[in-house]
Amino acid sequence: MPCGRRRCRGKEYSCSMELSLAVIGGKWKPLILWHLRDVPTLRFSALRRTMPTITQKMLTQQLRELESDGMISRTVFAEVPPRVEYGLTDSGRDIIPILEALCRFGRQFEARFGVEPAEAPAPRPVEPAPDELEEALVARQLAAR
Amino acid sequence: MPCGRRRCRGKEYSCSMELSLAVIGGKWKPLILWHLRDVPTLRFSALRRTMPTITQKMLTQQLRELESDGMISRTVFAEVPPRVEYGLTDSGRDIIPILEALCRFGRQFEARFGVEPAEAPAPRPVEPAPDELEEALVARQLAAR
Repeated sequence: MPCGRRRCRGKEYSCSMELSLAVIGGKWKPLILWHLRDVPTLRFSALRRTMPTITQKMLTQQLRELESDGMISRTVFAEVPPRVEYGLTDSGRDIIPILEALCRFGRQFEARFGVEPAEAPAPRPVEPAPDELEEALVARQLAAR
Repeated sequence: MPCGRRRCRGKEYSCSMELSLAVIGGKWKPLILWHLRDVPTLRFSALRRTMPTITQKMLTQQLRELESDGMISRTVFAEVPPRVEYGLTDSGRDIIPILEALCRFGRQFEARFGVEPAEAPAPRPVEPAPDELEEALVARQLAAR
């Protein structure tokens, strides 16, 4: 398996699997791609509602990385207030069958070990509404042009 | 997508995908399963050599979780010194096609964006030889019976 340390788009790794995990692995990226799978696009706030325990900062960072690696598109509509929407690219869409297989695994795991209800996660810390923040940022970028 | 907060084997989640990621996601678990895919078993030290940047503590923890979730088996041979070997269970083996698809994605990503050689990772901090530590622990457990 060790086949030489190498680098691709700023990620260092020893095997292709490690690279894959750097691009679409981790706790949040598969979930983000998954929630985008059957809608044309989602706004930041809508995405965040699907992942109640992610922080705004973490979601922003994960979206930036996925965009930079060509997995999602980010479209800014120069409206007032500006609107920003995220959607899968063709490369992002190519990942969905893998995620579907992962999801099936989760269901089989539940069937094997049993499930019990859990309490709702702790309420999020008070933060400005995500879209407002995102949009204020975009408005500033547009104004600076 | 939100379908109620629930719990399975101590993991809290809102959708099956989140559960899958808790069981076999993260930075290391897919790599551990991947390196076990075409050998009957591996010793701790052999596994660690395939992942030069993982710490001993982290590898131990990830192996314990994978074992507890039924993805790998851990066999202790009561020899002197004791020998401990890890292998995939049937459930662990079921995951391999997903990991193969992930690996293919990594290779396509490399082909698209290009690869450059990277330096070898920084040398690991000085630690006792992994098998020695693992085996000393097992020897103590066996002696305590």
